[in-house]
Amino acid sequence: MKIAVLGTGDVGQTIGSRLVELGHEVKLGSRTAGNEKAGAWMKKAGAKASTGTFADAAAFGEVIFNCTLGGASLEALKAAGEANLGTKVLVDVANPLDFSKGFPPSLSICNTDSLAETLQRAFPRVRVVKALNTMNCNLMVNPRLLPESHHTYLSSNDAGAKETARGLLRQFGWKDEEILDLGDLSSARGTEQVLPLWVRIYGATKNGAFNFKIVTAGT
Amino acid sequence: MKIAVLGTGDVGQTIGSRLVELGHEVKLGSRTAGNEKAGAWMKKAGAKASTGTFADAAAFGEVIFNCTLGGASLEALKAAGEANLGTKVLVDVANPLDFSKGFPPSLSICNTDSLAETLQRAFPRVRVVKALNTMNCNLMVNPRLLPESHHTYLSSNDAGAKETARGLLRQFGWKDEEILDLGDLSSARGTEQVLPLWVRIYGATKNGAFNFKIVTAGT
Repeated sequence: MKIAVLGTGDVGQTIGSRLVELGHEVKLGSRTAGNEKAGAWMKKAGAKASTGTFADAAAFGEVIFNCTLGGASLEALKAAGEANLGTKVLVDVANPLDFSKGFPPSLSICNTDSLAETLQRAFPRVRVVKALNTMNCNLMVNPRLLPESHHTYLSSNDAGAKETARGLLRQFGWKDEEILDLGDLSSARGTEQVLPLWVRIYGATKNGAFNFKIVTAGT
Repeated sequence: MKIAVLGTGDVGQTIGSRLVELGHEVKLGSRTAGNEKAGAWMKKAGAKASTGTFADAAAFGEVIFNCTLGGASLEALKAAGEANLGTKVLVDVANPLDFSKGFPPSLSICNTDSLAETLQRAFPRVRVVKALNTMNCNLMVNPRLLPESHHTYLSSNDAGAKETARGLLRQFGWKDEEILDLGDLSSARGTEQVLPLWVRIYGATKNGAFNFKIVTAGT
C-alpha cells in the first residue's frame, strides 16, 4: 500500500520504517522539501521510502498517518491540502500536548473536545481514526516488545476507516483481542486524556516502555 | 482506627463496609443526620458502624475518605468543617464527573487543575491523598476480584499521608508493587483524567469490573 507519514520526528520515522519493513511504500512528509531528518531516514529505510512536503506525501498516500506534534497537526493538514486528503483514511496518533509551561505538559485541547475531532471538523471528508496514541512509538509498531498482552483503541465516525486502521495494526503485531473499538471519534477525548497519567507514570518510573492492559473480572 | 466516610452512595457504603469488616470503627457521614441510606447501611454493617452528619463524621475520624460525588465534594468538606478536618489525612477517591449533558460525562475540573488540588487549596491543613479513583468501588476495596495484578496510584503533597493511605490500601488487599507513587498532588490531574477513557471502555464492553495494569518491558 502507498502510505503517507506526516511528521519527521521519532514517531513519524518509527512508523515509517516499520511500514517499509512490512512492504509498504512510504512517503515521509515535512513542512518543506529537503528536510534533513527525512533525508537521513530515507537512506536508512530503503528503496520503498521517499520524502516530500506534507502535500506531496498526502497526494501519494492511500492512507495517511498523522505523526506531527499535536499543536502543529492542524497546520500540517492545511499544508497537506484538502484536495490531497480527500476521503482518505487519516490515522491520527498525535496528542495535543502543551509543553509551553514545561514538564509535565498540559493538553491544548481536552474534555469536551479532542485533537482528532478538531482535525475531523476542519476536514470533514477525510476519515479520521484515532489510534495508538496512548504509548510510545516503539510499542505502537511492535506491541510484542512487551512481555504480555496490552491494549490499544480505535475511535472514528467511519466504520470502514476503522477496519483499514485495524488491518494496519494487525500488521504491526496487534492481536484482535488487544484492539478495542471505543465508538465514534468523540471517544478520542478519552484516549488523548490518558496522556497526563502517562507522563506522570513515566516521571515516576523513568521508563517509557509501558502500556496499559485492561484487566477484567472473569477473564 | 476510627475512620470517617463522607458520602452514602455505593462508593461510601462499599468502602465503609469493607473498613468495618477489617475491624475499623466507621462513621458514615451525610448532609443531614438521619439519612435513610446511611441508616440501612449501619444495620447491615454491624456494631462498629455508625452514622452522622459530615461534621459528625469528620470529627470522629482519624482518617477521612471523601466518597461524595466530585461536584459536591467541596460543599461536603465545608459542611464537615475546617476544625473537624484539621490536619487529618483525607483520602480522596472522588472524580469531578459532570453528567449535566448526559452520558458520557465530561469533567468539571481538569487539565491544569484537579478536584484533589481544589480540595487541598480550600483546606490547606488537611492532608489530601488522591487514591483509588480509577476503578469501581468493588475493586477499590478488593483488588483480588481481578484475576491478575493491576495498579492504583498515590498523589499527595504529604509523604506521611501517603504512607497512611498505603497502609489502608494494603489492608484492602493491594500488593506493594501494585501501588505506584506518582508524586505531588498535581499528579491527580492524571488519574482524574483517566475517567473519560474509563467510561468509554465501560460503554464499549458493558463491564465496569476492570482496571488498568501497567505492562512494562522487561518485567
